[in-house]
Amino acid sequence: MIAVDWGGSNLRAYRLDDGGQVVERRCGEVGALACEGRYAETLAAVIGDWDDRLVVMCGMVGARGGWVEAPYGPCPAGVEALAAGMVELTAQASHVRALAGRSLWCAPGMCDLRDAAADVMRGEETQVVGLLEQLVPGVHVACLPGTHSKWVRVEDGVITAIPTAMTGEIYGLLRGHSILARGMPQAEPALDPAAFDAGLAQARAGAGLLHDVFGVRTAALFGRFDGAALPSYLSGLLVGHELQPALARAGDRPVHLVGSDALLDRYARALSAHGRIALRHREDLAAAGLYRLARARFG
Amino acid sequence: MIAVDWGGSNLRAYRLDDGGQVVERRCGEVGALACEGRYAETLAAVIGDWDDRLVVMCGMVGARGGWVEAPYGPCPAGVEALAAGMVELTAQASHVRALAGRSLWCAPGMCDLRDAAADVMRGEETQVVGLLEQLVPGVHVACLPGTHSKWVRVEDGVITAIPTAMTGEIYGLLRGHSILARGMPQAEPALDPAAFDAGLAQARAGAGLLHDVFGVRTAALFGRFDGAALPSYLSGLLVGHELQPALARAGDRPVHLVGSDALLDRYARALSAHGRIALRHREDLAAAGLYRLARARFG
Repeated sequence: MIAVDWGGSNLRAYRLDDGGQVVERRCGEVGALACEGRYAETLAAVIGDWDDRLVVMCGMVGARGGWVEAPYGPCPAGVEALAAGMVELTAQASHVRALAGRSLWCAPGMCDLRDAAADVMRGEETQVVGLLEQLVPGVHVACLPGTHSKWVRVEDGVITAIPTAMTGEIYGLLRGHSILARGMPQAEPALDPAAFDAGLAQARAGAGLLHDVFGVRTAALFGRFDGAALPSYLSGLLVGHELQPALARAGDRPVHLVGSDALLDRYARALSAHGRIALRHREDLAAAGLYRLARARFG
Repeated sequence: MIAVDWGGSNLRAYRLDDGGQVVERRCGEVGALACEGRYAETLAAVIGDWDDRLVVMCGMVGARGGWVEAPYGPCPAGVEALAAGMVELTAQASHVRALAGRSLWCAPGMCDLRDAAADVMRGEETQVVGLLEQLVPGVHVACLPGTHSKWVRVEDGVITAIPTAMTGEIYGLLRGHSILARGMPQAEPALDPAAFDAGLAQARAGAGLLHDVFGVRTAALFGRFDGAALPSYLSGLLVGHELQPALARAGDRPVHLVGSDALLDRYARALSAHGRIALRHREDLAAAGLYRLARARFG
């Protein structure tokens, strides 16, 4: 089968053998938000020469306004419920010769409407399904950092909570468009570990995020850090503020981290500063998740 | 004398009698950041026909890169210390006929470098000096909300802490430039009290600001509020998060609010929701503060 993790900014395709092992992988830069409605043509250009019949996708491609809407399923949900929410889009692909005759499906997102402040995710649920086979029964906590970081709680193979933190988006806004941008280099510099750690420590001081971020401005004014270290200080502040409520919920459990190496370096460092154990996982768990959803749905 | 509160976006001038009472006031739209270096000409256009000899200013006009740098004085500071930090700029104005022969001065800003996360303010210290004459000895807490809200602690007439919260700036970034902008009207709608209160309540739930703001997005997705109510919900979230550490520091004291009516309506409502007493003060306290600084400096 073919597994496709099609997010807003890129497309990752995996060819899997019958046991679910990845035998070939490809990455396209054409995100689901950028292909201007030409979903079938874009997909065919990436996987057209792979002859597998079953294609299962996840991510923004299944959002409202995407190729097909695969509605959010309610939290809690396990593999069976997510597999049951898969939506077929075989017909929508048949006009493109390289996709005709294939069976195309899209995995659903998840929503948690139990609290007044609702949460949603799309794509991360499939990565967590891919993680499940590594987890023993019991309670586990996974963090998928990014623009909108997800903190996923798993209880005996069922996803039971999906709180989001807008860490990455707020970092980008403050870094690029606020008064804090003054004195920062435009290009993203390498992580400055000491400044990042200082941000983590400040976040724990209890003065509040809205106060702490102003300290990036005064750190520039009074020369506490070089300009190239200021983004790391801001990053440490925000990651620190993300971690505090998340770790309070997690108890003393280790945290499974899923994401790119660069992001996971920061989060592992932050977890270590909090005395927590970080367990790192490769970003392409979506392939394993899509395989598992397909097995649950089609046997 | 003439008192001038010259901030980044506008200029407020007051003509005071010998007892410090305001006998005339004018407001110009030419902020210290917008007059392109023509400070003397801009000031002369507003106050040139007032014949008082002494002109005392505060605000961004005294920032580095402004008309004159009136350096930040250290916190704690009382009226005497602030008055001693006033910087003369008589010579810089003498080339403009309407200002020649006058004595021009600028009040300093304040900085607090005692914590690693430093704080600064410029202009608000003078408003608080104007407030002092209304305060009995003891500890008082004043909130000056805005782009960068200031929470000023006063002990027996001395300003002893000046923590900042970037509430207004982050509101503007999230409202205008983040994913939360989707579904919000472009023009600022009237305050929706129920949505604002819901934001305040969510901020107290302990899930963290980075999580709570994502709830504005899901509130739009799932129709919890009308689009016109979403800015009020976001505002309630951010003001609520500003208040929590600030009120923890304030103890059970009433909070003196200084600012525009529209902002003070929100903050008074938020303080009431926290069971706190709000004491509202007019925004033009700077005139009284500049009068008091001038008396301390010149008798």
